[in-house]
Amino acid sequence: MPTAIARRGLMLVVSSPSGAGKSTLARRLLESDPLISMSVSVTTRPKRANEVDGKDYFFVSRERFEEMVREGAFLEHATVFGNRYGTPAAAVEKILAKGRDVLFDIDWQGAQQLAQKAKDDLVRVFILPPSRGELERRLNERAADPPEVVARRMAEANNEISRWSEYDYVIVNEDIPKAQKQLEAIVAAERLNRQRQIGLVDFVRRLIGA
Amino acid sequence: MPTAIARRGLMLVVSSPSGAGKSTLARRLLESDPLISMSVSVTTRPKRANEVDGKDYFFVSRERFEEMVREGAFLEHATVFGNRYGTPAAAVEKILAKGRDVLFDIDWQGAQQLAQKAKDDLVRVFILPPSRGELERRLNERAADPPEVVARRMAEANNEISRWSEYDYVIVNEDIPKAQKQLEAIVAAERLNRQRQIGLVDFVRRLIGA
Repeated sequence: MPTAIARRGLMLVVSSPSGAGKSTLARRLLESDPLISMSVSVTTRPKRANEVDGKDYFFVSRERFEEMVREGAFLEHATVFGNRYGTPAAAVEKILAKGRDVLFDIDWQGAQQLAQKAKDDLVRVFILPPSRGELERRLNERAADPPEVVARRMAEANNEISRWSEYDYVIVNEDIPKAQKQLEAIVAAERLNRQRQIGLVDFVRRLIGA
Repeated sequence: MPTAIARRGLMLVVSSPSGAGKSTLARRLLESDPLISMSVSVTTRPKRANEVDGKDYFFVSRERFEEMVREGAFLEHATVFGNRYGTPAAAVEKILAKGRDVLFDIDWQGAQQLAQKAKDDLVRVFILPPSRGELERRLNERAADPPEVVARRMAEANNEISRWSEYDYVIVNEDIPKAQKQLEAIVAAERLNRQRQIGLVDFVRRLIGA
């Protein structure tokens, strides 16, 4: 029977400029690793027909959201197109305490907020595109966009990329399977981090017969 | 052509009580990964017929060794059975600067000395046996040993094991191929550590067209 050391889960943050492959990598990781689940956010955005409350999002009123902000119930929260989004601390804690991991597909601002509240549980990975040519190609995919839209998108990408140094790990994604393996190695290694293996204290005690 | 980000090598320390499989894991890692080489120690021990100076050890006189100690030329040094052994800082630095990694098969005392001199380059992995029964079996393999020898060996193992909490990662080795994969994942992840990828600053500069 394999030796199971109890461990505390980790909060895996994956960020990147748009088009660098973050969503593909995140999806593949969720599919390949049953111990990782996506963080479910709380939002004030109206529920769409195909969405399930508690699965896609927790849908709440604006009043309830602001109340949760005041209660300190969020690890991070943000406003996007006038709608409020937040990561509920209690739901994440419940998963981590079970030794399961939570994946966050958020930007650098969300990552900064998480870092303030959950430093030790956090593993931050930044995905970079392989070259400027590839970045431009991805940003200009819709050829009909006027130059000012393209320029704004490029400025946004540059702004996002400039946050790379706030992350623990950086993956240059030139090949999805390779980048996926690298992301998996980061998860595997972080699970072996001594401080996350909270069962080691008891395990070693039995080992030395104390 | 793959994007090569210049990186600084890492100092991989693997420690364990005797019999936990450290040497097997270290050998397999050296065989499977051409970027990792073993640290070559300086010693005052007489050279054996099958040993090569500069490959197995750097063989020096006791006077020269003590001079190197005074010069601060060692990352760590120790005395074993009256012979002096030391890790030469300059040789290790040369390898790290090339973006290659160095493996150290040393005990917790050596690891403590390394930590004082090279904290940022260090990745410390501790290997534990899977159970007390297995540990006793390995320590008692030579059935003819008198009880006091067995007891001393057990006390030594307990002393070594009790240092587990000074390491960054802990692997419970119940299955060599599994433990080997875990060790490889740690190396792969640590190479993706932002601070070790020293070429990222220039890479990102080109990426954002600065």
